[in-house]
Amino acid sequence: MEITSDTHSQHISKQFNHELEELKTHLMAMGGLVEKQVQDAIEALLEGDSRLAERVRDNDKVVNDMQIKIDEECTRVLARRQPAASDLRLVLAVIRATSDLERIGDEASKIARNALSLVEAGRSPRGFVEVRHISEHVRKMVRDALTAFARFDTQLALSVVREDESVDSEYTTAMRSLMTFMMEDPRSISSILSVMWILRALERIGDHADNLAEYVIYLVKGLDIRHTDPDQLDDEAIQGKS
Amino acid sequence: MEITSDTHSQHISKQFNHELEELKTHLMAMGGLVEKQVQDAIEALLEGDSRLAERVRDNDKVVNDMQIKIDEECTRVLARRQPAASDLRLVLAVIRATSDLERIGDEASKIARNALSLVEAGRSPRGFVEVRHISEHVRKMVRDALTAFARFDTQLALSVVREDESVDSEYTTAMRSLMTFMMEDPRSISSILSVMWILRALERIGDHADNLAEYVIYLVKGLDIRHTDPDQLDDEAIQGKS
Repeated sequence: MEITSDTHSQHISKQFNHELEELKTHLMAMGGLVEKQVQDAIEALLEGDSRLAERVRDNDKVVNDMQIKIDEECTRVLARRQPAASDLRLVLAVIRATSDLERIGDEASKIARNALSLVEAGRSPRGFVEVRHISEHVRKMVRDALTAFARFDTQLALSVVREDESVDSEYTTAMRSLMTFMMEDPRSISSILSVMWILRALERIGDHADNLAEYVIYLVKGLDIRHTDPDQLDDEAIQGKS
Repeated sequence: MEITSDTHSQHISKQFNHELEELKTHLMAMGGLVEKQVQDAIEALLEGDSRLAERVRDNDKVVNDMQIKIDEECTRVLARRQPAASDLRLVLAVIRATSDLERIGDEASKIARNALSLVEAGRSPRGFVEVRHISEHVRKMVRDALTAFARFDTQLALSVVREDESVDSEYTTAMRSLMTFMMEDPRSISSILSVMWILRALERIGDHADNLAEYVIYLVKGLDIRHTDPDQLDDEAIQGKS
């Protein structure tokens, strides 16, 4: 009797662990797609490739569907398994993460739409250097945040949080130069505005990567560091001997 | 024995209902503050009141703290009560809603910061009529979404979802006129850009109100209508005889 019950609970816990692993796997798949969307949107812009831009725009549906599917999975796990402690934090972190990934997907699709109007206008406006530079930066942030999530790596997560500040300052500088270009050449206002929207989208993607990184710290350490100034973070407490 | 156990479980269930009610109350308090932040940010802009703008900017901390507090409450309820079905959906809807309210707070604070730079520049630029109009529209959406949440009113929630489309088209029209003003008077580029950022923030607030309304439908009906075209929504299924 004792043995049967043990075997039974071992079976349940094995099944449960499997479900949690599946959640992570699906989140990573969604993350991979979203990363690719950002990369393709920027490539479409820089290469003037309107077909690629259209594909990014249309693929946004796939990202959205993934969010709904993963969220349903999370709800099922919560209802059936009633997880506690770190398992509960994992499920909640996944729910929060799908929301940020979905918004990164939205931003990629906005970039693609602005790329399309730039290609149609046949202009190669100023600001592409800045776009390329910042896009590489935020793509690295997204990639690192996802890796940190997959590996429960709080040190990598913290580096993403700190990275976000430098993206913000690059963004401010780039916006200032674009405004100068506009004033110098008012005929370019409309195309430079499109580039500004693209930069703004990239800056938002950086913010979402920052959020993803914060969830990693939450799920590993149980600390909610959203809204904490990165300079105020206590590295030892976060990275500690976990 | 039977009676004791019944009394005990009635006690727990009363306590549990109380906790769920508390969650809703706290969410409404956060919603009220966020609504006020949007209202004050717009008033600061239109009246050129830099003190009010500074207050909005500084109050964002309070909004952020509320989010963390409510999210902790939700996690505690999930861990201790292990809610199922509609109770689980309520807790998940509250977690999602705090995230949108926090982002509305961020947008209010962005509006306040742009209002500050406009006041400093001493300019009363074009586009204020549009800002006033769209701000009234999105504030109504936020208010209605919160009311729908408080009353589990899916009909009101659906009207908010449909409203978002008309805000989007007002936004596009307003942005187009602002671009024309810029071209006519390049010296006003910098101040018109600030107004554009404010409009963009308002449009985002409309999107968040739309999200809030979708959570109401999710929590009452168990339907996830995010990413569903409002024209494709089946009113009967949503409003049905609940």
